Amino acid sequence: MPIDLRFEPDEAALLTDLYELTMAASYFAIGFNGPSCFSLSVRRLPPRRGFLVAAGLERLLEALEEFRFAPAAIDYLASLKLFTSAFLDYLATLRFTGDVVALPEGTIFFEEEPILEVHAPLIEAQLIETLAINQVGMASLAASKAARSLIAARGRRLIDFGLRRSQGADAGLIAARSSYLAGFAGTSNVLAGRRYAIPLYGTMAHSYIMAHETEAAAFAHFVALFPQLSTLLVDTYDTIRGVENAARVALELRAGGFKLQAVRLDSGDLLDLSMRARRTLDQRGLGEVAIFASGNLDEYRIDELLRAGAPIDAFGVGTAMVVSADAPSLDISYKLAEYNGIARLKTSQGKLTLPGRKQVFRAINPSDGFFADRIGLAEETAAAVAREFRPAPTSVATLLERRFQAGRRVEPRPTLAESRDRFAAELARLDQRHKDLERPERYTVRQTTALAAMVTAEKLRAERRQD
Amino acid sequence: MPIDLRFEPDEAALLTDLYELTMAASYFAIGFNGPSCFSLSVRRLPPRRGFLVAAGLERLLEALEEFRFAPAAIDYLASLKLFTSAFLDYLATLRFTGDVVALPEGTIFFEEEPILEVHAPLIEAQLIETLAINQVGMASLAASKAARSLIAARGRRLIDFGLRRSQGADAGLIAARSSYLAGFAGTSNVLAGRRYAIPLYGTMAHSYIMAHETEAAAFAHFVALFPQLSTLLVDTYDTIRGVENAARVALELRAGGFKLQAVRLDSGDLLDLSMRARRTLDQRGLGEVAIFASGNLDEYRIDELLRAGAPIDAFGVGTAMVVSADAPSLDISYKLAEYNGIARLKTSQGKLTLPGRKQVFRAINPSDGFFADRIGLAEETAAAVAREFRPAPTSVATLLERRFQAGRRVEPRPTLAESRDRFAAELARLDQRHKDLERPERYTVRQTTALAAMVTAEKLRAERRQD
Repeated sequence: MPIDLRFEPDEAALLTDLYELTMAASYFAIGFNGPSCFSLSVRRLPPRRGFLVAAGLERLLEALEEFRFAPAAIDYLASLKLFTSAFLDYLATLRFTGDVVALPEGTIFFEEEPILEVHAPLIEAQLIETLAINQVGMASLAASKAARSLIAARGRRLIDFGLRRSQGADAGLIAARSSYLAGFAGTSNVLAGRRYAIPLYGTMAHSYIMAHETEAAAFAHFVALFPQLSTLLVDTYDTIRGVENAARVALELRAGGFKLQAVRLDSGDLLDLSMRARRTLDQRGLGEVAIFASGNLDEYRIDELLRAGAPIDAFGVGTAMVVSADAPSLDISYKLAEYNGIARLKTSQGKLTLPGRKQVFRAINPSDGFFADRIGLAEETAAAVAREFRPAPTSVATLLERRFQAGRRVEPRPTLAESRDRFAAELARLDQRHKDLERPERYTVRQTTALAAMVTAEKLRAERRQD
Repeated sequence: MPIDLRFEPDEAALLTDLYELTMAASYFAIGFNGPSCFSLSVRRLPPRRGFLVAAGLERLLEALEEFRFAPAAIDYLASLKLFTSAFLDYLATLRFTGDVVALPEGTIFFEEEPILEVHAPLIEAQLIETLAINQVGMASLAASKAARSLIAARGRRLIDFGLRRSQGADAGLIAARSSYLAGFAGTSNVLAGRRYAIPLYGTMAHSYIMAHETEAAAFAHFVALFPQLSTLLVDTYDTIRGVENAARVALELRAGGFKLQAVRLDSGDLLDLSMRARRTLDQRGLGEVAIFASGNLDEYRIDELLRAGAPIDAFGVGTAMVVSADAPSLDISYKLAEYNGIARLKTSQGKLTLPGRKQVFRAINPSDGFFADRIGLAEETAAAVAREFRPAPTSVATLLERRFQAGRRVEPRPTLAESRDRFAAELARLDQRHKDLERPERYTVRQTTALAAMVTAEKLRAERRQD
């Protein structure tokens, strides 16, 4: 019996909502399997978010390359007594043969903009819905949250400490990957280190100190084995006495060439304690020892600490980042935009969708910053859309790129390091006023004239679909 | 290359923080591997929570039975150039040989109460920390959140629709399992259906309606194939016209024995729309057709709708439940309580831990309800602790049970159905005042006199650990 944490490749196809399969069965029965376009987008940015960061695409595309219903999966579906054997036989041979255009990972995006569009036969495109939303949603949510700590930290180093509080195993991996993409220096998550070649960080927990008869003995034992990993956790008992004990170890071993790297504060008033720890270290000639802070940190707290002058050199960020605590979900959906060459939209109250195959156009200013976007139709050109921006842009970029074609990924695939560089560059190009942590100014996103006209026409057509 | 969603059994051991391994390496080097006790508990209940529900234990125990560092994992750890080959050889043969006492899944618990205690050699107990917190934390978080919808729904049927918005693949599985444990009728999550034998629900999305030229054609096509799954989604365009179209299909096919089960509302003002939908159906003699509601629902919204008299028969609950939106993490930790027969505690500001091997004692009243708990030492007896409760209880139950012994699960393992029954019984035994969704009364949890005395003694001892 497989253990429950195991996740077989053939299980990705079952990681879906039952209705995807009942719809597919109906499409199969009535012969609906023409070309379709589905669009994945976030309807509204969460509170206090001025931008979002695209992530998770490569994990999704990898799953799409391997997408199949294995014999055991078919057996399970057969046991539900819902599906015809003809449909199950069809599922057993189904592969994802479609195309995907998408924002490369690390791209900054805004509300209503397609993060990806799937062009595939209707049944295939429908069956991957849940997986696409689940994977790209969580990864983009975590990257967007992590980016906020990056902004708050003003260049100080950030480490992901969130695995234990992440919502399950997969979320811990996604958050480690997304936070590294957003500019974190590394993670404590060993499996993420292996899978994504992310630098690993970690030294000791309180239990290590507590297992020793004295704190000083614990420090001495640790640095004896790991002199190169000498960040000592000083708050198990009294924090400042802990700093003094760490300093004593540092001074005793200094003659042998040992250099204490940092003390870690994990509780209490981090502003006061970091100042006192800095003073304690400096008074002993340990000015080069860094102060590392952790414990319920997020972008708000980091910002507050640094504004107040806390002499903290690096932060471990855990729970709040990995669960995106102040906005733990995105209002993300995957909507049919075209079927059989005909644009589609729904008019549900407050949930109007955008019809047709689309493109995102981004206006670039003379200093290479970007200042406004237009969501347009895929066939529009950047040159034509450029005329719709005020002020006139220096250039207009098209953001959606073909990343998957006829069932295979388009090479070369970006590495995680490349996506990380892309995000760093994008963040530098986004105006400061959209990066405010509390009250970011809204970035301008509009529909092109052509798309707006199509929306109007399709609304009229949608009314007739109920006659 | 394995696809990224795959999760091999040997990867569970790497689903850990690096510091667990550096601590283990140090323990190995200095010969610290005596018997230890670690305790997993939630420090404070999240806002508006009057109780929590234990879940995730069986998944964790399954992983512990299979816990090992496979050769590929050892190779990766070797590549970090942090560990001696003697330690890596030791890790390669390491298995979890300890004992686990725990609250059975479905047990209601409160702040500071041990959810589980691990009794194992120090290195083993340390290495499973991250996995234990991650798995039991998310599962209990989701079960606790789902229980609130159950309370709000007052017996109406609830279905988990959350997979797409869950934080990754594992979270979707955990939430499906936990919500079923908490009393949901089923899930849309097909993989969870397979793994946990949970009933599956689902019919159609908006895209199904939109792919058809008319809504009526979509309805007719669907019920032709799935007459037994006839919940029709009516809000793709105008909701009430959608209800009328669904009613028309029901009436046309009635002669052939077809019975429309429900219409589903997924947007707009659900109170107004459900009343108008009910009227529309009743006027056509379709009083037996149920109304199913979904779309951004949580316990607050369900409670509000039902208090206002919304004629809704069943609810699909998604995002807010699976991410526990109003409290997306638990303040949960795994702390060393004893090493080498000596109790341990930390005194970090605001993070005092409870020393020693413990037991949770629960006071039962004459009507079989429970009204107060004591956290005590494992060696205390229920009869002795009974004398510490006021009023005197009819009986005192001990909650922590041995679920794992010497590396294997204790048989029989509870099935998910049994855990679900246990929770239903526990919920009935908890006084109503702790179930209020907004302002639950705090349940009484205290330390026994013996435990309180040990805390005092150990605080004094902890001070000396910094000398």
